[in-house]
Amino acid sequence: MKVVLLSGGGGGARFARGLADTLPPGDLTVVGNVGDDLEILGLLVSPDLDSLLYTLAGLIDEGRRWGREGESWNALASARAWGGEEWFRLGDLDLGLHLVRTELLHAGMSLSGVTDQLREKASVSTRILPATDGRLRTHVHAPAGSFPFQEWFVARAHEDEVDAVSYEGADDARAASGVLEALADAEAILIAPSNPYLSIGPILAVGEIRTAVESRRVRCVAVSPLVGGKAVSGPLDRMLSRMAGGTTPAHVAGCYPALIDGLVIDGADAPGEADVELVATRTLMSDRDAARRLAEHVLEAACG
Amino acid sequence: MKVVLLSGGGGGARFARGLADTLPPGDLTVVGNVGDDLEILGLLVSPDLDSLLYTLAGLIDEGRRWGREGESWNALASARAWGGEEWFRLGDLDLGLHLVRTELLHAGMSLSGVTDQLREKASVSTRILPATDGRLRTHVHAPAGSFPFQEWFVARAHEDEVDAVSYEGADDARAASGVLEALADAEAILIAPSNPYLSIGPILAVGEIRTAVESRRVRCVAVSPLVGGKAVSGPLDRMLSRMAGGTTPAHVAGCYPALIDGLVIDGADAPGEADVELVATRTLMSDRDAARRLAEHVLEAACG
Repeated sequence: MKVVLLSGGGGGARFARGLADTLPPGDLTVVGNVGDDLEILGLLVSPDLDSLLYTLAGLIDEGRRWGREGESWNALASARAWGGEEWFRLGDLDLGLHLVRTELLHAGMSLSGVTDQLREKASVSTRILPATDGRLRTHVHAPAGSFPFQEWFVARAHEDEVDAVSYEGADDARAASGVLEALADAEAILIAPSNPYLSIGPILAVGEIRTAVESRRVRCVAVSPLVGGKAVSGPLDRMLSRMAGGTTPAHVAGCYPALIDGLVIDGADAPGEADVELVATRTLMSDRDAARRLAEHVLEAACG
Repeated sequence: MKVVLLSGGGGGARFARGLADTLPPGDLTVVGNVGDDLEILGLLVSPDLDSLLYTLAGLIDEGRRWGREGESWNALASARAWGGEEWFRLGDLDLGLHLVRTELLHAGMSLSGVTDQLREKASVSTRILPATDGRLRTHVHAPAGSFPFQEWFVARAHEDEVDAVSYEGADDARAASGVLEALADAEAILIAPSNPYLSIGPILAVGEIRTAVESRRVRCVAVSPLVGGKAVSGPLDRMLSRMAGGTTPAHVAGCYPALIDGLVIDGADAPGEADVELVATRTLMSDRDAARRLAEHVLEAACG
């Protein structure tokens, strides 16, 4: 069953692994968010693509939930001592990937080409595609000003309340090579339990992708990232309250107008009301088995 | 006493520290070789400038004689696993410097500007200047072909015999900012016990520098890198035998025609004959004190 998942990192990556554990090898294609990408110390870093790759390859630090297991931090400490930026944490193992990707990008390879090469090196059968090979950057607009995503998220510890989110470069962005083909071939389209504004929004801001999902002939089901109206991690509950007026399933579904046919919610949020089908299950992915069970439920819901 | 030293890394860097330990702070300026510089994993690496900086800052690995003490190698191992180049060894601590330098260079700062900023960060009072801010690269010509320096030295383990050495970019190279001023102000010019072809040759290949040394009004004294006709490390003895016909003090002095007034040689090579003054002492820098004693002897010889 060919499935396309739109996903950020974090919980989205764990859900992607649950799907990969459920579906036949090669049936899953993940379209990842690149709105969080940044240049730091001259390196091109794609945090969400990396979280997807590390999680699917079994390299992720499960405790920290980002970066590599068994990581060391010597290069960053050295860079700091020589006057380099230090606000964005890059481990030594992580740096190895960023060095290779940055060199390939500078040599003219596309981000989707690089990502596919890295996936092959890690023997990951799930295809990982960036939403776009172009430059697309999320900006957060807050009372104190407008900030590039990582400056708000990391340097300002995402403490500012968010009034709006915008996606620089989205107007001109084309879907990356393979994305539209995967969506056209999909028997189901899924949206991961990721932040709708910060992780899924930048993907759907690519016009070709939004149009492809809007004009789908198969079901599209999203998984709510909230449990009992609260974000499992991150600032989504505060953002939804301020920007959408609440944190019920209807408020989550409202982030995806005309884009989803169903929303999988946690039992703690049921019964709920929304203008799409609601399916309640346990959505907290406390371990890999829980992620696989959630994936099975979501695939059932997507089969309608 | 204002002194300018022309130097490579390795033994040259140890001699530079001996001078720095002898002279008043700020009196020493080292002009370093950049012919060994390379781009690897997208980073701009200046091995000789780094050896000078690390040695003068007390950060060098004294056993390995290059790179940082307490080094780890996790980023390079990771890069290799992702398909990156691995023939040139870059430790994690070392990478921190290369990341900062590469970012500053890409932002438009000159190599001399970056090098000076790094020196200040390490609280090193000795000025370290690249011979040139332009691109200058040493190539080695061998029976098997011509090779960029690092390919011959590292990847081919400098096993090929050398017929000739050339310096790409030398014709157009200008002395880096500060070099000619330092030479004009110097009360003595010294040439470190570095390889004349591979370390000092690229410096003197910069026309403005060669002219400044040729037209000096102060003494210029070189230190022979040979002990008993053998190189302390590296391929110099084989190179001198093949390219100059022998490894006596006269053959070493012959590498610096019209450029030096004296040559400091090891007692094992004395008595020798050359058309410059020969001064015999112990030149093996087995520890920091030995380097300081050698520096004192060389400064005496330079004072004529």
